[in-house]
Amino acid sequence: MKLIFDPAQLAHRPTQYMVHGRVVAPLENPDRAATLAAALEPLGLVREALADAGRGPIEAVHAPDYVAFLAEAYARFQALPNAGPEVWPNVHPYRGAGPDLGARGRPRPTGILGRAGFYLGDLSCAMMAGTFEAAYASAQTAIAGADALLAGERAAYALCRPPGHHAYVDRASGFCFFNNAAIAAERLRARFGRVAIADFDTHHGDGTQAIFYTRDDVFYGSVHTDPSAYYPHFAGYADEIGHGAGEGANLNLPLPFGADDAAFLAANERLAQAVAAFGADVLILSAGWDAHRDDPLSRLAVTSAAYERLGRLWGATGLPTLIVQEGGYSLAAIAEAAPAFVAAFRAAAGLAA
Amino acid sequence: MKLIFDPAQLAHRPTQYMVHGRVVAPLENPDRAATLAAALEPLGLVREALADAGRGPIEAVHAPDYVAFLAEAYARFQALPNAGPEVWPNVHPYRGAGPDLGARGRPRPTGILGRAGFYLGDLSCAMMAGTFEAAYASAQTAIAGADALLAGERAAYALCRPPGHHAYVDRASGFCFFNNAAIAAERLRARFGRVAIADFDTHHGDGTQAIFYTRDDVFYGSVHTDPSAYYPHFAGYADEIGHGAGEGANLNLPLPFGADDAAFLAANERLAQAVAAFGADVLILSAGWDAHRDDPLSRLAVTSAAYERLGRLWGATGLPTLIVQEGGYSLAAIAEAAPAFVAAFRAAAGLAA
Repeated sequence: MKLIFDPAQLAHRPTQYMVHGRVVAPLENPDRAATLAAALEPLGLVREALADAGRGPIEAVHAPDYVAFLAEAYARFQALPNAGPEVWPNVHPYRGAGPDLGARGRPRPTGILGRAGFYLGDLSCAMMAGTFEAAYASAQTAIAGADALLAGERAAYALCRPPGHHAYVDRASGFCFFNNAAIAAERLRARFGRVAIADFDTHHGDGTQAIFYTRDDVFYGSVHTDPSAYYPHFAGYADEIGHGAGEGANLNLPLPFGADDAAFLAANERLAQAVAAFGADVLILSAGWDAHRDDPLSRLAVTSAAYERLGRLWGATGLPTLIVQEGGYSLAAIAEAAPAFVAAFRAAAGLAA
Repeated sequence: MKLIFDPAQLAHRPTQYMVHGRVVAPLENPDRAATLAAALEPLGLVREALADAGRGPIEAVHAPDYVAFLAEAYARFQALPNAGPEVWPNVHPYRGAGPDLGARGRPRPTGILGRAGFYLGDLSCAMMAGTFEAAYASAQTAIAGADALLAGERAAYALCRPPGHHAYVDRASGFCFFNNAAIAAERLRARFGRVAIADFDTHHGDGTQAIFYTRDDVFYGSVHTDPSAYYPHFAGYADEIGHGAGEGANLNLPLPFGADDAAFLAANERLAQAVAAFGADVLILSAGWDAHRDDPLSRLAVTSAAYERLGRLWGATGLPTLIVQEGGYSLAAIAEAAPAFVAAFRAAAGLAA
């Protein structure tokens, strides 16, 4: 089982984030990736500069104009008079009916402020000099993980950072720029007919859900905190079951605030049954450790012990599996949860240590 | 000619605004209204607490759930742990296709963070303790102005603040909470068959345009700075001509950066011709003074002298006219432009001083 980490991902070091109307230091910082890499090194994680598969696999999911925006945003924003330290969106297109309907599909503004408001959905996507390079390396990490499975490996872990599951076809949000799990899913479709993505990050993966919402070849299911008063707020409700050809290939299992290990594991068991019922040929796990009760963003009561049991659960599916790193913001919790999960996953899958 | 000002509008005193990714002091502050009131007092402006026409005329334009949000937002936001000084949106619904399509028409989140991101479109709408009351008083000022015309007055000036033309049916943006001009237009429809709104604020009135975009009984036309790289970025383009029954009842006349008095006045003349061609029975002027070359937000080269000529132009239409105050952020410039405009308007309309 390959465990992949490209240190180029550390180049994204934003200084700003907003919580409850206050500017604070970002929780999604390079220390997370460094902590995970150190914790997983005893399990065989390799630090290496990955081969560059180019923009092709990224643009199989993301709009080329969005990719181009991300590549140029920082330099253009810095050219504004008295620009802040990072690209931060300040104005967003109207969501409702109106003449700016066209703005949904294409950005009319040519200026960087309008384009930032079009492509960046919130204030947890501050972009600095190294952001594009880090997000690109994160996507390449997921691609390398998918390629390991395409080459016949039974399982791989991609230490992707920044994370990906809140990124839409053409919008960054929630610390995410490229949707690493979606890019891997699209890549895996070259050999596997039916791909399932199971997401146990404590936040619903609204970007992943939206990307595959009308498709029947990629299943998306998620166990997460009830979004009624929790990020991402606008998606992740139980009645979102897919649309058109995709109806039935989307499953949301929101948990109430305070849910414990038993509730968390039961929901994951239900999700694993849905993956089996879908008839998946390959599995992608969007693995966040932020349901942990010690996580600064968590509203659940999940313990480190649950992640060991979760590893056993998801290691027993019999499916080729790519674990894609999503969130997790307590350095102490992720240093426990990630290796506990991976070791248990490997044992349950019958893979050599 | 009545000149109306309700000091209750001064209660909105936000401390935060964002420009180019930096938190700065708001340009839309109570000093603007105080300066305009003082400058227009020699022309007969009366400071008075207005009669309350209630939420009815406001909800003739705005969604009741949006009005309810504005009324409760500050108290709910302040209850968040370590809340900032004002309500600031941090996360916005996705604009594109996806399962959160429903979010366009109704807010799924019950929590205040999601609701703030749904109803507040940008960071120029900070809400503090007095914001709702001031915005409500601003709307009541426009209603009082409309009522003056309904009672037979030939013209009135409503010193509305905060301004209104960026407010949508269910979204605040660009310093605006309630769309005062739209509320007045709807009110005037009780007696006047065809209402024209002419907007010469330097920013396109995207909210007003959207509210009436599919209607043929209310014309919206605007002279403003090219939005390609200027607020509101996503609307105000020349190809937005109305839709369905409203096709042809919307006219955008964007001006390039650096446009001077001659260009500004020529575009206003063209707009006045369109108002006449529409066959308007009554005219609302969305009057901003921020095209002035001294305005901190202006990218045009318009001088105070132009506003005197503009007053003559718009005073000569022969139509009952309500002047609704929109933007203007240089205290020195608005103290010159507003009285120059109103005095010239009154003279051209043949109204007594």
